[in-house]
Amino acid sequence: MGTHFQVLTTDSATAARRGQLQTRHGVVQTPIFMPVGTQGTVKALTAQHLHDIGAQIILGNTYHLNLRPTSELIRDLGGLHKFMGWNKPILTDSGGFQVFSLAKLREIREDGVAFQSHLDGAKLFLGPKEVMTIQANLGSDIAMVLDECPPWPCEKAACAEAVARSYRWAKQCQQVATDNGFLAAGHHVFAIAQGSTFDDLRREAAESLASLDLPGYAVGGVSVGEPEPEMLKQVGATTPYMPVNKPRYTMGLGTPPQILKMIALGVDMFDCVLPSRVARNGLVFTPDGPMNLRNERYRTDPLPICPEISNYTTGFSRAYLRHLTVAGEMLSGTLLTLHNLHFFLDLTAQARAHLEAGDFGSWHRAWIERYEAGAAERKASRA
Amino acid sequence: MGTHFQVLTTDSATAARRGQLQTRHGVVQTPIFMPVGTQGTVKALTAQHLHDIGAQIILGNTYHLNLRPTSELIRDLGGLHKFMGWNKPILTDSGGFQVFSLAKLREIREDGVAFQSHLDGAKLFLGPKEVMTIQANLGSDIAMVLDECPPWPCEKAACAEAVARSYRWAKQCQQVATDNGFLAAGHHVFAIAQGSTFDDLRREAAESLASLDLPGYAVGGVSVGEPEPEMLKQVGATTPYMPVNKPRYTMGLGTPPQILKMIALGVDMFDCVLPSRVARNGLVFTPDGPMNLRNERYRTDPLPICPEISNYTTGFSRAYLRHLTVAGEMLSGTLLTLHNLHFFLDLTAQARAHLEAGDFGSWHRAWIERYEAGAAERKASRA
Repeated sequence: MGTHFQVLTTDSATAARRGQLQTRHGVVQTPIFMPVGTQGTVKALTAQHLHDIGAQIILGNTYHLNLRPTSELIRDLGGLHKFMGWNKPILTDSGGFQVFSLAKLREIREDGVAFQSHLDGAKLFLGPKEVMTIQANLGSDIAMVLDECPPWPCEKAACAEAVARSYRWAKQCQQVATDNGFLAAGHHVFAIAQGSTFDDLRREAAESLASLDLPGYAVGGVSVGEPEPEMLKQVGATTPYMPVNKPRYTMGLGTPPQILKMIALGVDMFDCVLPSRVARNGLVFTPDGPMNLRNERYRTDPLPICPEISNYTTGFSRAYLRHLTVAGEMLSGTLLTLHNLHFFLDLTAQARAHLEAGDFGSWHRAWIERYEAGAAERKASRA
Repeated sequence: MGTHFQVLTTDSATAARRGQLQTRHGVVQTPIFMPVGTQGTVKALTAQHLHDIGAQIILGNTYHLNLRPTSELIRDLGGLHKFMGWNKPILTDSGGFQVFSLAKLREIREDGVAFQSHLDGAKLFLGPKEVMTIQANLGSDIAMVLDECPPWPCEKAACAEAVARSYRWAKQCQQVATDNGFLAAGHHVFAIAQGSTFDDLRREAAESLASLDLPGYAVGGVSVGEPEPEMLKQVGATTPYMPVNKPRYTMGLGTPPQILKMIALGVDMFDCVLPSRVARNGLVFTPDGPMNLRNERYRTDPLPICPEISNYTTGFSRAYLRHLTVAGEMLSGTLLTLHNLHFFLDLTAQARAHLEAGDFGSWHRAWIERYEAGAAERKASRA
């Protein structure tokens, strides 16, 4: 355990690291953004598009895939990689977070979570054994343990209980993955540190999980409604207590500046539906902040979205992309998702390059400054 | 006039021809199927996808593009090819058919058609000058004249009037395209023969339009509700009176067997929304008839859609494509549209190859027989 992840460079000005993570489907260069492919597809894109924009690893959602088409079906058809035609690494979550956010009538018990499907109301149960079995069926390169994600805000006593239960579940998940040969076969299992806004619980969660010596560690329970400074404080209260030689992952985050700030806190891996979700509504990212292509000002604009990034979408004018968006054409979703995911992938690629060049600290501050100034200017000119 | 189209081979057993059509954006090999790109995009596909599946020429819809984003905007941005990133030929219709099928409160006058936009109710007018100006703004390689499409069924007197008016409009369109240099610049204008189910009016329409010596001719007013035998009879009552040395086009047609039957009647060009429209509902074409991927029987099916055709979509199992369709994922629309349009393009490519090999007659009969037997079998096994 431990040789699967190498820290290649550590930044002198921040806690940022440049690393590489070995998986059953190849090496992932970190820091890295991971596009989200909830139902066996990154919405609106083909696998070819994902290769074209430099995606190294994508996410699958255990909760959704287990409901439909079921993990057994995917297993019988050769696993999720083959099913969806993606031959690079896949990380899957445990499904626990979706049980909390999507399912009906959930009940947390010591042995897991009972709930009803949001699709048809079927009564279901996910415990440590179930989530690990499902992720083994999917053939996940990185499986996440089951955890209990406390709401925000949250009483400290309830949070301490969630941290303790998440530790017990992580240990049980590790046992299942040991017993069924999942870990021995080179699949990874990452544990999740909870603790809400309580620094001491965050530290306790990180340190107790570190003792399990799992292949990677995530910060969970962030971006659940708390303000951004609080969110960054929670990440900063967790990462120092995670093993240095294991990859660190913040789940479900964030905006481009947030990602850079978290890289500076020592986080290696990110996933977020933000870029693909807003793309389907006409919002695109640029180094000068987000741009709403539905805006009338782009009706006759012959320029590409932004000159600094080059992909299939940048071959088209803002006027054309706006037209597709206003007309409700599917191609708008495809082209804008392609651009936004490339923007996030390119951002982490730039971060890697600046870590190698040794100027990550100054670069990331300047990048955020330009982005936020541009966003403020666009906002003001709309007013 | 006339050197832009060459008939390379004529079939001995049928009236089918193998030809090639020169346009401002390259040569089109005929017979050919043309994917429909109504609003400046073939729904759900990128231009790259269209190149990958061998599309040679696509359609644009004047009615839609003129309402949104307007033909002036497209002209100012360099024309439709540049706007949508498609560097091969584009044929545009006149917008007349959509006025009849989509617009509100339409009124046919001698100088054109007054109507209200289906989008916002704006009062608009399309006459010969307007439709030719719009298509010149779009930079169309092949512009269609304005015509009056009688409904089915239709009184003979009313039909004769529509035929006569369509002739006058065609002549006026030709005059506009001569005066503004459109024809001299190598753009083509195709006229449209109407005549409903009246053989003598069909012949009169074809012969009178032929006297205008335009670059191409279409059969209009077919597939407007009449049964298939009647539709084929109308095409067969028109094509013999069209010039041999000009391309022939049946507008808005048809199923794969219908396309082969019309090729046998001497038609060179086809367009139809059928393959892309049904794809978005999970229906795909195979040499053994259409296949509804929503059907439960494909839930665990590891096979590709059909083994005889190879494209990006055939890399996926029916089970995966069914999953995407049932889950409502956009990728289903993209992958199934790609397959269906490739199937139609491949069908005309096969027709061209068999015309060259000299066995089109027997091949097309056998192809239709297999397709219809397969379709009947699938239908029976659903019952």
